Amino acid sequence: MRNGHPALRLAATLTASLTASLSVHGADLPRAPYLPLATAQALANAALERCAADGYAVSAAVVDAAGVTRALLRADHAGPHTLESSRRKAFTSASLGRPTAELAELIKRMPEVAGLRDMHPSILILGGGLPLRVGGERLGGIGVGGAPGGDLDQACAQAAIAQVLGPP
Amino acid sequence: MRNGHPALRLAATLTASLTASLSVHGADLPRAPYLPLATAQALANAALERCAADGYAVSAAVVDAAGVTRALLRADHAGPHTLESSRRKAFTSASLGRPTAELAELIKRMPEVAGLRDMHPSILILGGGLPLRVGGERLGGIGVGGAPGGDLDQACAQAAIAQVLGPP
Amino acid sequence: MRNGHPALRLAATLTASLTASLSVHGADLPRAPYLPLATAQALANAALERCAADGYAVSAAVVDAAGVTRALLRADHAGPHTLESSRRKAFTSASLGRPTAELAELIKRMPEVAGLRDMHPSILILGGGLPLRVGGERLGGIGVGGAPGGDLDQACAQAAIAQVLGPP
Amino acid sequence: MRNGHPALRLAATLTASLTASLSVHGADLPRAPYLPLATAQALANAALERCAADGYAVSAAVVDAAGVTRALLRADHAGPHTLESSRRKAFTSASLGRPTAELAELIKRMPEVAGLRDMHPSILILGGGLPLRVGGERLGGIGVGGAPGGDLDQACAQAAIAQVLGPP
Amino acid sequence: MRNGHPALRLAATLTASLTASLSVHGADLPRAPYLPLATAQALANAALERCAADGYAVSAAVVDAAGVTRALLRADHAGPHTLESSRRKAFTSASLGRPTAELAELIKRMPEVAGLRDMHPSILILGGGLPLRVGGERLGGIGVGGAPGGDLDQACAQAAIAQVLGPP
Amino acid sequence: MRNGHPALRLAATLTASLTASLSVHGADLPRAPYLPLATAQALANAALERCAADGYAVSAAVVDAAGVTRALLRADHAGPHTLESSRRKAFTSASLGRPTAELAELIKRMPEVAGLRDMHPSILILGGGLPLRVGGERLGGIGVGGAPGGDLDQACAQAAIAQVLGPP
Amino acid sequence: MRNGHPALRLAATLTASLTASLSVHGADLPRAPYLPLATAQALANAALERCAADGYAVSAAVVDAAGVTRALLRADHAGPHTLESSRRKAFTSASLGRPTAELAELIKRMPEVAGLRDMHPSILILGGGLPLRVGGERLGGIGVGGAPGGDLDQACAQAAIAQVLGPP
Amino acid sequence: MRNGHPALRLAATLTASLTASLSVHGADLPRAPYLPLATAQALANAALERCAADGYAVSAAVVDAAGVTRALLRADHAGPHTLESSRRKAFTSASLGRPTAELAELIKRMPEVAGLRDMHPSILILGGGLPLRVGGERLGGIGVGGAPGGDLDQACAQAAIAQVLGPP
Repeated sequence: MRNGHPALRLAATLTASLTASLSVHGADLPRAPYLPLATAQALANAALERCAADGYAVSAAVVDAAGVTRALLRADHAGPHTLESSRRKAFTSASLGRPTAELAELIKRMPEVAGLRDMHPSILILGGGLPLRVGGERLGGIGVGGAPGGDLDQACAQAAIAQVLGPP
Repeated sequence: MRNGHPALRLAATLTASLTASLSVHGADLPRAPYLPLATAQALANAALERCAADGYAVSAAVVDAAGVTRALLRADHAGPHTLESSRRKAFTSASLGRPTAELAELIKRMPEVAGLRDMHPSILILGGGLPLRVGGERLGGIGVGGAPGGDLDQACAQAAIAQVLGPP
Repeated sequence: MRNGHPALRLAATLTASLTASLSVHGADLPRAPYLPLATAQALANAALERCAADGYAVSAAVVDAAGVTRALLRADHAGPHTLESSRRKAFTSASLGRPTAELAELIKRMPEVAGLRDMHPSILILGGGLPLRVGGERLGGIGVGGAPGGDLDQACAQAAIAQVLGPP
Repeated sequence: MRNGHPALRLAATLTASLTASLSVHGADLPRAPYLPLATAQALANAALERCAADGYAVSAAVVDAAGVTRALLRADHAGPHTLESSRRKAFTSASLGRPTAELAELIKRMPEVAGLRDMHPSILILGGGLPLRVGGERLGGIGVGGAPGGDLDQACAQAAIAQVLGPP
Repeated sequence: MRNGHPALRLAATLTASLTASLSVHGADLPRAPYLPLATAQALANAALERCAADGYAVSAAVVDAAGVTRALLRADHAGPHTLESSRRKAFTSASLGRPTAELAELIKRMPEVAGLRDMHPSILILGGGLPLRVGGERLGGIGVGGAPGGDLDQACAQAAIAQVLGPP
Repeated sequence: MRNGHPALRLAATLTASLTASLSVHGADLPRAPYLPLATAQALANAALERCAADGYAVSAAVVDAAGVTRALLRADHAGPHTLESSRRKAFTSASLGRPTAELAELIKRMPEVAGLRDMHPSILILGGGLPLRVGGERLGGIGVGGAPGGDLDQACAQAAIAQVLGPP
Repeated sequence: MRNGHPALRLAATLTASLTASLSVHGADLPRAPYLPLATAQALANAALERCAADGYAVSAAVVDAAGVTRALLRADHAGPHTLESSRRKAFTSASLGRPTAELAELIKRMPEVAGLRDMHPSILILGGGLPLRVGGERLGGIGVGGAPGGDLDQACAQAAIAQVLGPP
Repeated sequence: MRNGHPALRLAATLTASLTASLSVHGADLPRAPYLPLATAQALANAALERCAADGYAVSAAVVDAAGVTRALLRADHAGPHTLESSRRKAFTSASLGRPTAELAELIKRMPEVAGLRDMHPSILILGGGLPLRVGGERLGGIGVGGAPGGDLDQACAQAAIAQVLGPP
């Protein structure tokens, strides 16, 4: 380290210049919107409620834009796997910014992108996850698991968004 | 947290109302049936016995409705992977409420639901797992692994159910 | 397997006798009470509310008697680790049937039981988890994480139990 | 689910009321500041540079307030474990909002809180991690690993903060 | 690889000589005894029975000399963590050839060997695991978890050995 | 546990009878052959040597009948993934008793058994793994990874078996 | 161990001969080139820069020939999964020495090699990873994740190589 | 990303300058020595041989400077946990450049650094691991596990180094 390669010494010099110019003040920092817990929980409950009305016992998860869980709820009689399936769908939609059903269709059409399934331990490419956005800004994702079909899970997620976040 | 968003304060108020009305007495609580260990162990042994009669050394697992193992047995000469394959089949059938072979057929017909495989670390979509129910109530699942074919594994699970739980 | 050891053949015979006598009818099965989601969610919200009143942004988790999550909520500004710390405290209290703070004290007094920490990946021995019981029956556990001290986390869990489940 | 417990039906009603009042507009959402990558990378480089000046080959990690990595750099000859040790220190300081060395001292004084180590797979309680804040707002954490002592690692993290973020 | 280092070429030559002399016939192979499943299951049941007589709902695990599970049983009302705690105790005693309680005492006396806890993901150093041997040969291990004390767990394991394997 | 279900009491009685008849003497125990390390290491070296002669830098693994590694060697310039790919191929062939290439062909022909891939974390269904048997008895498996094709990997494994274990 | 199998004693003797002839001097050891951190970081930044110019927020990873990370950077607004997807692509290209897109095409054409996906936890077979070589020697790999298509990710990786390492 | 923060644009500009000056030619790259497999395997065998002479059945692992395994051997009758304990000791010594016993003593004297145990999943701080160096250059580490004491394990590692690498 001490007798570093010239490139490393150059990098150090550049870093010094760079950091000198970066001193940061709170007012200068960019800001991102986030969902308060009350909204996240309302989304999860609205999805459960809709699925219950349809006759399905499910789990619903809401994650923030970083993919970290805000609310995770499992209905009575929903199987234990639905906790993780709903959370992974929410993570996937939050991180990729697309409905999970769309990604599932993509892999069906283009088998060379099947590797999308293996990108991260929390990725789940199966209908039931939707991204959350308000005014074009990313807020995270919602995922539902436990209905007998990804389209049925997605309908509950969609209903929750319509009810809580309003029209897009 | 102290200067919370109005929605959070509203949620807190509603929660207070909600919880006030929920005080719980044991008598009020819903109840779910469960398999005693003797029955779970009898199921696993009956599956092993049937597979042994068919000439296969297997593992057999019985899990409860929460997907948590009750009995897990590995026959002499059954490969080490059969512990986890039988347990995952049992978990999958218990949590989804369907035979694992049915789910495998579903994915074959509808490749867009292949993501079912990735819902949870304990999911295994391969013949040999059956849900356990008595009188329409969910009791968990049984899984068998190690015979040279999922249909052969399932036959042992089915025989165990017939012998121990009787006709559906 | 076919030329089995005599003990194995004996076991098979005994299993056959055993299972013959076990045919199960729904009415015969033992039953266990469980918390409906509304109650589980009320517990988690009540814990968050109490911690918010104390000035702490936390996560709260409620798990059932099998240790499987029913409700998991993370307050605005609660760190990402609190999801898992609250869930692990809830799991630990549900599975061992004791407050996590009591277990932490036990290890402090008796270092030879420090291995309790390593029993299972979801065990967390740190104040903030309490078992849930009604009328002497086990219903699961509640865990809180994020306050600057296990006693503060536990106070929120305790307040939630008092508010939702009433006096023991 | 269809013949739900009264408490569940009540919760559904309350949720409906709650969500009706929550319709969200972008302008209403709370916002949090975040570090741009250029700043995160400058912090990591400044830490490496300071440690190199001190004669140590280390890794440096910067994570955001959600604990998700922004920049992770490993100096030539720094051991492979330093990637994960620096990242975990950064995560721990970001999520708990305190220097990791302070937490290590806390456990030393109060063995009953040793469970802090087991809260989450990314927690590492060992000197070398510092929270990042500007104007009292949480921005994440920085962690350094590889110097022969947590105080030496922390000195590099501290120097990076002073150079890039300026006086607190 | 093609232009290999001289040492590699030397190794290859020696390997060729070595393997030429090793041709293996079944009759020449060393042999190790193993427990049939009936015995493994009898051990687990005897441990459960003894703990039930003592008033404790536990799990009991029996693993072979390779540390691979043969039988794993969880009593009604035993917590979910006991599956893994009993299996880990069995693994630890099988692999190290010593009672887990003895290892726990060792760490208490010699803190410099506390790293024993971290040797392998299945190690659990907490009373309740015993090695299984017959005639001086290693057969595996038995582990019990769920009684309120490692000595109580070990008593059940010990009783099972005495009943099933007879005096040492 | 104390007021057990009748079936549990019956099981206890039967267990008592069963275990009474099982007292075990070393001479009575069944025995299984195993490969000494020298043979396992010779197999791995012979596989490396053959692959080197073919121009490929690979890893070679030999596991016992329980799937536990005996020898694992990585050639100079073999990629880091080959350690795990060779070990998993060896595990798979040892546990299922079949060449991994045969299993890969099976899944190609019968997509409904694709779940075989998910049975256990150490399963790898890709050419290059072969079971080890002498005189019809199972001894484990050998796996090779790193050649540009599973058939090339398998040729090295096959050559090692022929050289070290002789004709089948 | 003391009364070892003849093959083991033979192996010991051969090992003794072998090691006697191997005494190693630094000057004799083979040497491999590696990328200094400055170069690795320049590669990652160049990839981010190109993707930003194309309108994509991505992560970029550079790993060494052993697959161990040197630099990992996540652009503002790149999803959390891109950290792991870029790192896994870099690992895969470094360890297999091929573009990940080429491997994805291979699996598409030859379904019997789909097991390539399961070789190691860090393998990701999806466009966006390229091996790094200079003068025919292996230096590691670069991976990019987050653009809406593996070809777009790969274009950024390719541009970085062209800019930093020059023509092949 | 398109309307980037000024700091990000500055960083991009600097990166462009930096990378322009870095074009890399093979001849310019720094180089590091590595152990050929024959030497790594000789080290592992010499350690096993010494432990066998002392009466202990152990595993021995040799890893390279990146912590990636080169050779891993398990003696007949060595417990399954010794594979991972020896590998982790080798990794720890390779990555930290110190004997694992020294680190264990350090934690004993300074409990505030107990977090060293949690830095990375492959760290094991328990006697039996030694760094490998020739002529002051880092080559990796050797680890031994299975003797009844870390000092006994280390003696075998030390003997192997003396025999294969000669005096330091």
